Amino acid sequence: MPSEAIVMKAVGYVHRAIDNKDVRNREATCQIVIRKDLTDALTGIDDFSHIFVIFYMHQIKKDKTTLKVHPRGRADLPLLGFFATRTPLRPNPIGLTLVELIQRKGNILEVKGLDAFDKTPVLDLKPADSWDMPRKFRIPKWLELAEKEKAETTRKAD
Amino acid sequence: MPSEAIVMKAVGYVHRAIDNKDVRNREATCQIVIRKDLTDALTGIDDFSHIFVIFYMHQIKKDKTTLKVHPRGRADLPLLGFFATRTPLRPNPIGLTLVELIQRKGNILEVKGLDAFDKTPVLDLKPADSWDMPRKFRIPKWLELAEKEKAETTRKAD
Repeated sequence: MPSEAIVMKAVGYVHRAIDNKDVRNREATCQIVIRKDLTDALTGIDDFSHIFVIFYMHQIKKDKTTLKVHPRGRADLPLLGFFATRTPLRPNPIGLTLVELIQRKGNILEVKGLDAFDKTPVLDLKPADSWDMPRKFRIPKWLELAEKEKAETTRKAD
Repeated sequence: MPSEAIVMKAVGYVHRAIDNKDVRNREATCQIVIRKDLTDALTGIDDFSHIFVIFYMHQIKKDKTTLKVHPRGRADLPLLGFFATRTPLRPNPIGLTLVELIQRKGNILEVKGLDAFDKTPVLDLKPADSWDMPRKFRIPKWLELAEKEKAETTRKAD
């Protein structure tokens, strides 16, 4: 099987106002500024509450990729293949996040919950529909525990 | 903002046995054959019931991209920007599908519901977790009607 280079170009960029400090905050909003020549391609996107943002994590050093990682850099979580985690350290540093679409003004989308740094190139946007939602759903035990723990920490911090 | 070329390489390929005839069948299974040098990167993926497959729709002619399309090629549905649809005709022909992971044998994943042709380059796999599932969820009226219609047609065909 050939392993040719696949070439893409940004369709827009992420814009964050406050210097990436809120990048891990799922309640934070930021902007996606789509290329002006593609503004008409956004027609109708406003009718979706959620969209998938596919972006290119341009700050990732590809030579740091290893086959296995501890999720979230936590040594107490199991050592897993990168495909079993959402680590940014992967051969194609593609980010995928489901975000809430707050509003659109021309070529600018305001979205909630996008964990991408300022100036991140955006590769594609896809509206989320019911086919993207599984009915039955299973995640590993380690992730269940880690999420529970996180929810408790957040509650404590309130 | 610079618009540099972003270069990626396949991490594996889709393998379908019966000549793409079942590509639109959500119940059909097919294989994702991951590059052998990346086999260890799959460790732990088996514990997820669902994964997102990000793939490169290599058969798409980029010069056929237009800003607006009728979803599913149906003239009775509204004319929308490609970002508001899942049309493959987009500047970066990236496919995104949530699939059910049936089993893994070494570097080969058997998955259900992947609408990608035989030999499609796979760019990334991401495990699906609860953050990918919105609680409240809204889709456009046209899509709601189209999905209802489809469900009825399928029922009739049973």
